Formats: sequence, structure tokens, C-alpha cells
Amino acid sequence: MNAPLKKFADVAVLPQPYLLFLGDIAEPSYAKTAFGLADWAPERCVGEFSIGENGITVGLPQMSPVDAVAAGARSLVIGVANPGGILPESWIGALVEAIEAGLDIVSGLHVRLSGISPLAKAAKRTGRRLVDVRTPPTNIPVGTGRKRSGKRLLTVGTDCAQGKKYTALALHRAFVSLGIDADFRASGQTGIMIAGRGIPMDAVISDFESGAAEILSPDAPADHWDLIEGQGSLFNPSYAAVSLGLLHGSQPDVFVVCHDPTRHAILGVEGFTLPSVEEVIDMTIRLGSLTNPAIRCAGVSLNTSSMEADEASDLISLEERRLGLPVADPIRGGEAFSALVMNCFV
Amino acid sequence: MNAPLKKFADVAVLPQPYLLFLGDIAEPSYAKTAFGLADWAPERCVGEFSIGENGITVGLPQMSPVDAVAAGARSLVIGVANPGGILPESWIGALVEAIEAGLDIVSGLHVRLSGISPLAKAAKRTGRRLVDVRTPPTNIPVGTGRKRSGKRLLTVGTDCAQGKKYTALALHRAFVSLGIDADFRASGQTGIMIAGRGIPMDAVISDFESGAAEILSPDAPADHWDLIEGQGSLFNPSYAAVSLGLLHGSQPDVFVVCHDPTRHAILGVEGFTLPSVEEVIDMTIRLGSLTNPAIRCAGVSLNTSSMEADEASDLISLEERRLGLPVADPIRGGEAFSALVMNCFV
Repeated sequence: MNAPLKKFADVAVLPQPYLLFLGDIAEPSYAKTAFGLADWAPERCVGEFSIGENGITVGLPQMSPVDAVAAGARSLVIGVANPGGILPESWIGALVEAIEAGLDIVSGLHVRLSGISPLAKAAKRTGRRLVDVRTPPTNIPVGTGRKRSGKRLLTVGTDCAQGKKYTALALHRAFVSLGIDADFRASGQTGIMIAGRGIPMDAVISDFESGAAEILSPDAPADHWDLIEGQGSLFNPSYAAVSLGLLHGSQPDVFVVCHDPTRHAILGVEGFTLPSVEEVIDMTIRLGSLTNPAIRCAGVSLNTSSMEADEASDLISLEERRLGLPVADPIRGGEAFSALVMNCFV
Repeated sequence: MNAPLKKFADVAVLPQPYLLFLGDIAEPSYAKTAFGLADWAPERCVGEFSIGENGITVGLPQMSPVDAVAAGARSLVIGVANPGGILPESWIGALVEAIEAGLDIVSGLHVRLSGISPLAKAAKRTGRRLVDVRTPPTNIPVGTGRKRSGKRLLTVGTDCAQGKKYTALALHRAFVSLGIDADFRASGQTGIMIAGRGIPMDAVISDFESGAAEILSPDAPADHWDLIEGQGSLFNPSYAAVSLGLLHGSQPDVFVVCHDPTRHAILGVEGFTLPSVEEVIDMTIRLGSLTNPAIRCAGVSLNTSSMEADEASDLISLEERRLGLPVADPIRGGEAFSALVMNCFV
């Protein structure tokens, strides 16, 4: 067995900059990874590469793998998912072309790249790497509960897919713009591509879940902040174990509850009502206080993307009065978001 | 990828009956697995096999691998751990001898048998299997939260190693002796060897933790009981994710809190006070009610092994009055234990 992983600095960095692969996808909702990278890590992306007729664009320069290598790219990132979650035959030729041009392949798909024979052969022939972002580092240690130095914020949710990654990224951007020394800590595949490094918390063996979270946000100077991307929900019967291990290991000083006000049931299961924001606050404090007794809620991140501006603004004000906490939609920004950011420091 | 695991009946059964391997261990505390098997599954054990001079015994007939095969044994179970947790060189010859005699090898050690070259070669040569009980089944599905038929009891703890396996086994024995249709459901390596089948919950990938627990206690007739072996503790900062996934997926109707009254701090970590039994009851109900709103505490299993009989009896009475719940030490049995058993059905 290898030595246990001791520090985040030992977690592999993804080969960068990236060429974003858009495949032959015509439907933008399948390209969330590519849009996320173009929005949040444009400095890590040299261009985009699509192979279809009616392809989408994320607004980067179109580039062949050969041109991308000339522009400095070190890997091709699969920025799209196809409906089945598998890697379609129609993409293989382009991926082999990228490997032969000198790019590593980075994927967050469920299917493992090394199990796809033409890719495995091309990588072996050329010495290029196939990087599955869903594969966690080996030899993650068991969690210790030891209090680490520095400050930590964790985004939590009333359910999965409520804006936890987006909120952590927006808070990170706001913190940095205030001159605060801060890192975004990625816990899921798209977040890891954006950050260039991270740990896919849902793929870690349960015994090591809190240990992985401890590695993810290491000791830091007293005024440094880690903005940690949350996963799942304590109220989701499929994924609460992931959420609890991440909460215990992150030992956040502050958390932000992410919520989509149009959602009323837990996704992907039957018969589970969405918890209220207050229930999430209460449960997060009760469970989180095990590893950080000073844990508190800094506010609520409301996903109002389906609302008109004044409807969203009314709801934000209403929720703010009701909860007695800052409430904001990071996408809309403004004074509400500034108040949420400032409440992290009080 | 293989088809998802759909039912517990598809989880592999360990090859039985067993020959218990005691190695060259002289210290009984390293032979907990062998003692557990001899106590709880004597019908699955044909004999014991030790190779040292001053070896221990679990009271079974001494047998060579060849004699064990003649007596019907199908596997050799490594019933001891050595101090380092690895498999010492001095055992290899005996294990190869067992393989050549026609036995599969079953191990709950951390080290994987297939990674030990002489064993791998002997197994390949003879067509025998090397079974690592810590390796979970593949393709465990994501948890659904769907309510299953039948009744379920889960043992939980103020910490790890408080008697959760022992309590579930003792309750199972008591239920069966009352004529109740019941199964012991094993979630750790020794329990799996005792039951002959189970899922090592701490080795399951976090995303599938509650799904694994759902598989472990399948739909059953309305009056059937599963007695489920708990893992870890919701208050252990290393392993709470395991405990929560198991709680959510088990959706217990009833739980029993296991507690060692001489322990005051969480094992293996620094600075974590043991929670009170009341805190464990409260938190288990709050979290467990997500998947079974009718969850309730049936009582407390107190490990009084370090106490004199009258001291233990006094403590049991005191705790019973204080908590207003049945309290018993299953090892001491008696009226207190009968009261705990009966309170599972009220």
C-alpha cells in the first residue's frame, strides 16, 4: 500500500490549460460543464472544439486539437454529457485525434476512459494520460476531527442541484474582490475542473468521507478562507451520508443554505417533501457543531432564475424578514448579495 | 458495467462450513473474529487450525486442512488479526497448504489476499477462491428511500466498538427463541462471516451508502424482523457518514442504543467527549425519521463486562429509571434483557 495522502498539495492538479470538447451536442443543457468552465475558469480554457453540424458554442474560439496544442493547451476536457451518460461512438475519433495531437483527456463522465479500448490504446501509444475526475485520490486517511487553522465556509442545500457550486464560486469571487485571501474548494466533477484540483466527495469510500473533506480544506493562515462546494443534502435519503461526511470534515465556521423556491420535493426519489430552509439551518448547526461548535448560518442563496426581476426581489425581501438573515440570488448580485457576503465575516 | 445489484439474494454467500485459522497468535484479544464465529455460528465451523507452539483455542476440534476438507469444510477463515493488521509471512505456508487441500480462503483483514503473490498463484493453480470480506458487492444502486415491507431493528452506539454487533446477534437469538421469523443482517466483516453473507458498509462508496443498506434488509413479510448490525456513531467525526447512510437505508422501526458506561471519550480521535445516551436517542430519531417517521428507541444495551454482578445490576436499574426505557446487558441476560426484547414489539 502507498503512504496515506497527507495534504491537499499532494492531490493531482489537472493538466491545463484546457480545450473544451463540445462533441456533437445540440442541446445546451447537456453542456453544463463546458458553460461552467467558460464562466468560472476562462483563464484555464484556450478554446472549444465541436464535431457536429448544429453544435452549440460557449463563446470561446473554435480550435482543432493541433491548434489548441500550439496555443498551449495540455488537455481536452469533455465538457458535455450525452443523454445516456455514456461516451458515444461518434466522439471516439475526435478524442483519439486529440490524444495524437498531444493532449491528455479529462472526463467527469460516469464511464471510465481507460475502459474504452481505442482511447486506452491511443494513450498508451503516445504516453498521454486519461484522467477520470470522478476517481478520488488513493489512500485518503480516516478523519481525525482535529481543528484546522483558517476560516471555512460550506454551501449546503435543501436538496441536490440547488446552486451549491455556483454559490461557492460566486462567494469566492466576491471574497477575492474584497482582497481576502481565499480558495474555492471543489467537491464534484465540474467544480474540480473549474478549480483545477479537488476531491469528488461522492466517489470516496464511506469510511474515509470526513477524512477526504479534511484533506480538501487544509490548515491555512488565520485570515484565509476556504469556500467549499457542498454536495447533496442532509435531507436527501440517497446522499445524506456524503453531505454529513463533508460537513464533519469541512468543520465550517459559516454555512450558506442554497434553495430553489420553486422546488417542493426531493429530486430523484418518491414521496420526500423538500425541507424548509429553517430545518436545514437547524440540522446543519446540530450536526456541524460536532467538529466546530462555533458553526453559524451566514444566510441563504436563493435560485430565482425562473422569476421576473421584481418577483425575485419581493421574494428575497420577504425571506430576509422571515428568516432574519441575509438572502440573495448570487446571479442577480446587488445589495442583497453584498449583505450576504458581509455577514460571513461578522 | 454489470447490471445493478437488485436484491440481497444476489449478494454472494461465503463458502461454508469454515475451518477457523488461528495462525501463531498467543494473545486471545487478537482472535476476536474466531471467538465470535465459535460463539455465534458454531454450526458453520468444522474445526480450528493453528500453527504456533503456544497457540490459543476457541474450543473447536483441532484439524489440518486435509482433515477439514474430509469433514466437509469449504473454506479457511482467517480468524485472527496480527498487531500490524497485515498478513505475516509465517502464515503463508499454512494458507497455501489449505488452498492445495481444496479450501477457499476468506479474510476480513485490510490487506487484499489477491495482492499476496504465493496465495494468488496457489489459488490460480487450483481454481480456489480468495474472498476478501471487506470488498463490497459491485454495482450497488443509489438509495431510493422507498419504504420496504417487514420490520427492522438497528443497533446504534454512543461510539464504535460498544457492542452493536453483539447486541444485534443476542436480540436475533432472543427473537428466534420466541418463534419470530427474523434475520441477523451483517454490516461488518466479522458479522458477515457469522451470517455467511452481508455488506461491509464502511467499504461502500459514499454515494451508494444508503442504497447498500436498502439492499441489506430487503422487503419481507409484515411480521418478519431484520436485526441489523450498526456501524460507527453519528457522534464519531471519522465515521458518522457510514452511520447515517446505514440509518437512512435501514429505515428502522426500532433502534437500541449500545453503550459502554466506562468510556468517556470517542475512540481514536482527540478531544471528543462521548455523547450521552439521550443525545444519541434524540439525534437518531431526528435523522432516522426521514425514512421512517415511526422510528422509536426500544431501549439501551449496556456493556457492563468490566463490572461485578451487583454493581452492573445497580447501574442497569439506575439507568432504567433515569431514561424511562428498558436497559440490559445482553451478556448478563435475565429479566432486564427480556424486558428490552419485549419492548421491541409494543
